[in-house]
Amino acid sequence: MSVHDRKLRFGICGLGFMGRTYFTHLRDHSRARVAALCDRDPDRRAGRWNDAVGNLDAAAASPTSDGVFASCAEFDELLAREDVDVVAITLPTSQHADLTVRAFSAGKHVLCEKPMALTVADCDRMIAAARSARRTLMIAQCIRFWPQYEVIKREVDAGAIGAVRMASLRRIASPPTYSAGGWLMRAEQSGGAAFDLHVHDVDFAQHLLGIPESVSAIGRVGASGGVDHVHAHYRYADGRFALIEGGWERHAPWPFVMEITVNGEDGTLHWNMNDGRQVLKF
Amino acid sequence: MSVHDRKLRFGICGLGFMGRTYFTHLRDHSRARVAALCDRDPDRRAGRWNDAVGNLDAAAASPTSDGVFASCAEFDELLAREDVDVVAITLPTSQHADLTVRAFSAGKHVLCEKPMALTVADCDRMIAAARSARRTLMIAQCIRFWPQYEVIKREVDAGAIGAVRMASLRRIASPPTYSAGGWLMRAEQSGGAAFDLHVHDVDFAQHLLGIPESVSAIGRVGASGGVDHVHAHYRYADGRFALIEGGWERHAPWPFVMEITVNGEDGTLHWNMNDGRQVLKF
Repeated sequence: MSVHDRKLRFGICGLGFMGRTYFTHLRDHSRARVAALCDRDPDRRAGRWNDAVGNLDAAAASPTSDGVFASCAEFDELLAREDVDVVAITLPTSQHADLTVRAFSAGKHVLCEKPMALTVADCDRMIAAARSARRTLMIAQCIRFWPQYEVIKREVDAGAIGAVRMASLRRIASPPTYSAGGWLMRAEQSGGAAFDLHVHDVDFAQHLLGIPESVSAIGRVGASGGVDHVHAHYRYADGRFALIEGGWERHAPWPFVMEITVNGEDGTLHWNMNDGRQVLKF
Repeated sequence: MSVHDRKLRFGICGLGFMGRTYFTHLRDHSRARVAALCDRDPDRRAGRWNDAVGNLDAAAASPTSDGVFASCAEFDELLAREDVDVVAITLPTSQHADLTVRAFSAGKHVLCEKPMALTVADCDRMIAAARSARRTLMIAQCIRFWPQYEVIKREVDAGAIGAVRMASLRRIASPPTYSAGGWLMRAEQSGGAAFDLHVHDVDFAQHLLGIPESVSAIGRVGASGGVDHVHAHYRYADGRFALIEGGWERHAPWPFVMEITVNGEDGTLHWNMNDGRQVLKF
């Protein structure tokens, strides 16, 4: 039986907000199942994670009992399991590179949370390890798969607004309070908002418009110790440009905002998550 | 009787959308009255201007008859009138400098529509003429007096959000269709959106934060022949910065949007004209 004929078996490593979100969605996916949970905290492995909160309301499911899934306190235990095809790495960004390389050494595929890593050198290590192991590395840049962003990509590619002139992307939040132990607010672990938040729009802008010819950006070092608000201009050789603004320095209870506008010769596409579910076309 | 004791007597030159708006508000002002109307079009001078539309719903009043106000077909007629203290210049931007200089030569004060002029040299001429005539030149940068922007300026100055970190200002529209004869969409007359639209936020950012240490901007030449969408970063020596985005290239019926967010150490102020009348404080 080839891997294409059966459900992919995941081991989730790190049961904070994001690990719980993975659990919920992988458990319900027709092509996936959760084989193992890995975390040093036995309560979390047992699914006692009712403290799960996040910036979006992804209701976290809970394992019905400790015994339904293999329970691993250490990463090596997870890697040793024959019933795990893919390791999902949902631990702080600073750990992504080392854990990814170890997973490839054990012959696993890797689905790793965004952002990929904190340095280009770490990213290169991860890619080299995937190639060497002939396994798949996927970074979970979820915005490419967000329904409204998918609509925008499809409409733009189909020529629905003609030649693109410009895009404006925004992702603005108050300081994250939902990360396990507060790691998001420690730049040495998360990179700050420029890495953790802004990366979504960096990725989507490049997915939609390609690699820019030049980038000009300014930012502010905030409470995380990293750049917690960033403004970037992307400029393309053909005259298109994008403005991307991201940050988590708004004061609570500022509502999480993600917004995208793409202007073309023949029309304008716009979505703001707080205005409704529909992408608007003008 | 000093000028401080009586109503200022205005002559309005140019009865397009903006001239009609001036008429409506000056007529109702306790310290002003409209003494004369100047336009080459006799219908407009007679107040037959029911075609008045604009980007904001300022309902235009109409003179009840031709005889209530002096009616001048030519600018020199307006300047010759003893009963005009202030000339309000509501003609296309490209005419501001010449008309302003002529008004000062005639001993009038000048209230001139924004943007001031299309070149720094023209601005300098206007300032020099005002000084030489010892008369007042005021550019009608109305956003400084817009109630919600006034609230934001007052709150920031009062320390309500602590030390300012950054500001984001936006003013986004579809192409203006309300200018007399379509002059706004001819850059040689209007300068395009970078001059006509973006200037509001350029002015307010400097009013609020001061003169930036550096500015980085990108823009797009649009249908007007001028820059019709612009993104600018303002950077201040003390680390504050502002992002200002302005343009009128959205496709109709995109709603006119003006929005400002100011983030400080202790709070965030936000206003979007489409979200309601109140400035929100987080």
